[in-house]
Amino acid sequence: MEKTHISIKEADLRQFTEQVFLAIGCSTEHAKLAADVLIQADLRGIDSHGTARLSGYVRLWQKGRLNPSPHMRIVHETPTTATVDGDRGLGLVVAPYAMNIAIKKAKEYGSGWVAVRNSNHFGIAGYHALLAVEQDMIGYAMTNASPLVTPTFSKERMLGTNPMCYAFPAGKYPPVVIDMATSAAANGKLEIAQRNGLPIPEGWVQTKEGAPSIDPYELKAGGALLPLGGDRLHGSHKGFGLSATVDILSAVLSGANYGPWAPPFVAYLDPHPQPVGEGLGHFLGALRADGFRPIDDFKQHMDNWISRFKTAEPIDKAQPVIIPGEPELAASEERKAKGIPIVKSVLDDLLALANDLKISALVTD
Amino acid sequence: MEKTHISIKEADLRQFTEQVFLAIGCSTEHAKLAADVLIQADLRGIDSHGTARLSGYVRLWQKGRLNPSPHMRIVHETPTTATVDGDRGLGLVVAPYAMNIAIKKAKEYGSGWVAVRNSNHFGIAGYHALLAVEQDMIGYAMTNASPLVTPTFSKERMLGTNPMCYAFPAGKYPPVVIDMATSAAANGKLEIAQRNGLPIPEGWVQTKEGAPSIDPYELKAGGALLPLGGDRLHGSHKGFGLSATVDILSAVLSGANYGPWAPPFVAYLDPHPQPVGEGLGHFLGALRADGFRPIDDFKQHMDNWISRFKTAEPIDKAQPVIIPGEPELAASEERKAKGIPIVKSVLDDLLALANDLKISALVTD
Repeated sequence: MEKTHISIKEADLRQFTEQVFLAIGCSTEHAKLAADVLIQADLRGIDSHGTARLSGYVRLWQKGRLNPSPHMRIVHETPTTATVDGDRGLGLVVAPYAMNIAIKKAKEYGSGWVAVRNSNHFGIAGYHALLAVEQDMIGYAMTNASPLVTPTFSKERMLGTNPMCYAFPAGKYPPVVIDMATSAAANGKLEIAQRNGLPIPEGWVQTKEGAPSIDPYELKAGGALLPLGGDRLHGSHKGFGLSATVDILSAVLSGANYGPWAPPFVAYLDPHPQPVGEGLGHFLGALRADGFRPIDDFKQHMDNWISRFKTAEPIDKAQPVIIPGEPELAASEERKAKGIPIVKSVLDDLLALANDLKISALVTD
Repeated sequence: MEKTHISIKEADLRQFTEQVFLAIGCSTEHAKLAADVLIQADLRGIDSHGTARLSGYVRLWQKGRLNPSPHMRIVHETPTTATVDGDRGLGLVVAPYAMNIAIKKAKEYGSGWVAVRNSNHFGIAGYHALLAVEQDMIGYAMTNASPLVTPTFSKERMLGTNPMCYAFPAGKYPPVVIDMATSAAANGKLEIAQRNGLPIPEGWVQTKEGAPSIDPYELKAGGALLPLGGDRLHGSHKGFGLSATVDILSAVLSGANYGPWAPPFVAYLDPHPQPVGEGLGHFLGALRADGFRPIDDFKQHMDNWISRFKTAEPIDKAQPVIIPGEPELAASEERKAKGIPIVKSVLDDLLALANDLKISALVTD
């Protein structure tokens, strides 16, 4: 049997990723930060958002759509709100910059909320939300994204998979991290089905005419992803509403491009010729838990919440209830110890990247 | 054919509802406010949350679980956060009290966030969120509720239908109001299927053993509602995550009862004998749109967002994309003009209530 994954040590993958960001002109600080966001995705098992995306960022830079040394700045603010212009920087760097502003405001006033424009793909939402959790705050992170999802009743791609993340600190347990695309399934799940030659469940995609489909290649054929819920009967209007919320908070509020105007992540597709804003948008928030009750009380009740939900009566004893964030933490511990499994095609991509950018190839043993 | 609905004038229904709240001991101000929340639900076509609930509140009062003259107060705060103790008051009154605190904080600091404990059912989330919209702010409203929903992989009722609402002001268009239960379907939809003698779609409920079911009576038989998404394959872990977010923000943060400890709305079920907090919890928020960009810019882009989504290419030309909040507004305009259709069984309930409380019966013509 052919080996489809190669295991890479975290430190090697991190060092290589930093080199790539340095090679496109990032500062040492930004290269380390951007690499950390991608490596955390790989560690946490969110493979679609880790180094598998690295060449995508490089292609954007090659097209002149990404500024490796952005002058990020606040363009509008009140004591607890701000809009940040990301100056076409890496979302991986712009989002933590914005979250740190939110945290600073929350330290002083109880909460902080930062909308971001003129950015691009920010990696996993959970990374940014967890920056707030480290300060005993509740973290919010969301972003709009390339239009691939239809509103209920439409056949037009109008929205991205628009993830929303809420992260809550706990006491003895790890934080609860709800980090979810607002579509029924994200593109990564279609790719898994493609690799395995399997159909996908109804309610994930529709054809370009708007008919139900179970073909994992439907999106490539011009179809669309569906909002969480799938169809109207199963609540797709709710998934559409959540996705709209992310789009409005991230892009209408910040002055970024919203809806079908959101710039594509893939460099071979051009941004909309008549933009309605600047770049992609994010929305980050930090809310002090001790703004509502003493932190020890909050954490004790979070622990009680977690332990009660963990022991909710399972349908099948072999499959207990999963607390959001738990599988990602378990993956991270395992991968820190045993290495990060990288798919052969991604590895080829990273080797080509090293060649392109004239840097040392990734150490693979 | 038997007439199943009777049309009642808004003013008559409002006056009757106020009389009921006065009869249980509410102040004039509170009776008017509580009635307004219920009448707005009826006007907006959310019949399950309007005067159909009125006798439910009275039963709670009869059981001593509802305080008609609450001493509501802030028990913890920072410049932009607060926790309110609702003193077992009507959620219909406590939630607007809390939202007004959030709005006041937002006026001064850009945003305001209020968690509420020791409350009960607050009616439609949209009512409270729209209080912020009237001030050109983005409104958030959520509440936990009686446990009827299972987490993914469980057969135990652990969560309420836990609605979340986001409301956004616009310019020439009405506000965008996303007001949704985080379950696949709310109980009201099962009741409609029961009345019509029809099965329900898969993914709404499961049996008490955790098997799929299409029986509209399954919940009454000890089964449970399912989170948005229905099953794991269709994203029920996302619905569970959203519901958990509502539960934690509303109840863990405020010191209310969370998860399976949330007190039931129906008076014939007793609250949990070992509570983990006080009453039910809510979470309200107000975020100044002009904290991020000039309000005219924001409204102009909201209008552009709305008009672009309204004209997204439909699958069927007869069914264009629905902007969240639009059907409720249309219903409201129609019902203000033509009266509010009340189901016969609800009318009987309201007549019995008048008798019980020794007040004038509802005017029905």
